Amino acid sequence: MAGVQGSALAIAVSSAGGLGSLPCAMLTPALIGEELATIAAACDKPVNVNFFCHQPLPADAQREQQWRAQLAGYYREYGIDASAIAPAPARTPFDEQALELVLEYRPAVVSFHFGLPEPALLDAVKATGAMILSSATTLAEARWLEHRGVDAIIAQGVEAGGHRGMFLDDDLTTQMSTFALLPQIARAVSLPVIAAGGIADADGVAAALQLGADAVQVGTSYLLCDEATTSAVHRAALQSPDAEYTALTNRFSGRPARSIVNRVMRELGPIGEVPPFPMAGAALAPLRAAAEAAHHGDFSSLWSGQNNSGCRQTGATELTRALARKL
Amino acid sequence: MAGVQGSALAIAVSSAGGLGSLPCAMLTPALIGEELATIAAACDKPVNVNFFCHQPLPADAQREQQWRAQLAGYYREYGIDASAIAPAPARTPFDEQALELVLEYRPAVVSFHFGLPEPALLDAVKATGAMILSSATTLAEARWLEHRGVDAIIAQGVEAGGHRGMFLDDDLTTQMSTFALLPQIARAVSLPVIAAGGIADADGVAAALQLGADAVQVGTSYLLCDEATTSAVHRAALQSPDAEYTALTNRFSGRPARSIVNRVMRELGPIGEVPPFPMAGAALAPLRAAAEAAHHGDFSSLWSGQNNSGCRQTGATELTRALARKL
Repeated sequence: MAGVQGSALAIAVSSAGGLGSLPCAMLTPALIGEELATIAAACDKPVNVNFFCHQPLPADAQREQQWRAQLAGYYREYGIDASAIAPAPARTPFDEQALELVLEYRPAVVSFHFGLPEPALLDAVKATGAMILSSATTLAEARWLEHRGVDAIIAQGVEAGGHRGMFLDDDLTTQMSTFALLPQIARAVSLPVIAAGGIADADGVAAALQLGADAVQVGTSYLLCDEATTSAVHRAALQSPDAEYTALTNRFSGRPARSIVNRVMRELGPIGEVPPFPMAGAALAPLRAAAEAAHHGDFSSLWSGQNNSGCRQTGATELTRALARKL
Repeated sequence: MAGVQGSALAIAVSSAGGLGSLPCAMLTPALIGEELATIAAACDKPVNVNFFCHQPLPADAQREQQWRAQLAGYYREYGIDASAIAPAPARTPFDEQALELVLEYRPAVVSFHFGLPEPALLDAVKATGAMILSSATTLAEARWLEHRGVDAIIAQGVEAGGHRGMFLDDDLTTQMSTFALLPQIARAVSLPVIAAGGIADADGVAAALQLGADAVQVGTSYLLCDEATTSAVHRAALQSPDAEYTALTNRFSGRPARSIVNRVMRELGPIGEVPPFPMAGAALAPLRAAAEAAHHGDFSSLWSGQNNSGCRQTGATELTRALARKL
């Protein structure tokens, strides 16, 4: 998940025999380059580099205004001058600059979230010999990805933490659970399938394989690892009773993502009319900063899957080996 | 699931070594008695008898009127006189009359949906020696049921077909998938846990056991069985591409239940303001009858779990044995 990990976790996981991932969605090209150089220097095992490939949408002044109006009470509470709020942080989709970094560092695996980049960019990545992955949240998305030549499909069940990879439909009722989605995708396509969502420990890994997975993707269980960059409020939430209740929310970015339910999600509702992805985050940023300074995660995206029972304060090497215990 | 099965399926499943169930929610006491007598005569194996135990709510004239107004275009299309619509069919919660039948027929297992009946009724059922089951859709519900002395808990994942058993909260965002709910409930309570939701075949059974289940509950896979009473339009929908898309809807009864998405769910939205359970069904009944006469399931509750890939036109004996193949 973008924002909670960098090269350190990727290196630890790949070195332990898993496939570590570097999420690039929230990094500038310069930072991606630094992280890839760090990985190349520390680890000669395969690593996955993950990019978002959403269609950037124009700003929507009316939605922005409505969203800030909904937050007005919170701005008053924290003494924030709403007129001084900076624009949203960039989340550039995979582009020519990112491609240049792929051509330079040649990661063994490149994965995309929200579909696939345009054909010319995708072909250029394929030409490097990288294995191409992308997430499917429905059978239709799995068939679409197979048709466009990915090498394996990540079946992302609705219980997964962070952003839903959905890209053919934005209706949340289309989203299936791992137990339902995984075996049906495994039957519908002839590609390897990687199960994601709800897998928290070695029993979960074994269950996913039983349901037809060729591999698994685990995110949430790593959030308390020493190598993760998970914030203090996020770590505290994962270890509190609040962690029992997660929901899909578009409040933090404009796209649905699973977070532990916190004050802003509870008081405004987890889903509502917000500026398009990723611009919803801008209006929350000063509230997030102010609340976090007081050790509250009331306005922070507290990404977590529904099954966060596997979170451990441990090293990623140990956790990776524990997850693979029954293989 | 109520409405799609009676004694025949229960007898076949129990005789094949499973635990057959008789859903009583839509039966009058007289019919329950007949079904229990049929079961007693045909099968000396344990059978589960299932009751709804919702708190009946008073009729809501305003909601009823709003709901009929939403359906007005359909009434015109089918030439239905809305003023002649009969009241909702009874779905009496477990009561003294039902208890008398339990005392007479002494089923080995009695299960409840929507929590538990009032303590005096529950104690009287317990006194028969019946094993008591109820469904939990959250960790809080599992703890509540354990505290009230059930013998085992059905962990009902959000992918399950038919009515959600939720009873402590009516917020659908609290509903977890089998992959997330099952291992967490298994860890939170010290009772046997029965997994329900998404389990369609022998691999699903094995995966559920791997995740901590002591047993599994399978509904959807039986819907095409010879012994099921599934309607013709329901059987057709399960065998069509429509089956790929199910959603939770309150349109058919007033409570959320998972159905294949059909015309009324698509055009009005799966969730909306409708009369309280079970009264929402009355306004749809004539539309359902008219559409079914023309072989359309546009207004019918087409109960199905998200994973209906295990549906087979076969006998329940054969299906039960196939489900148990890896045990």
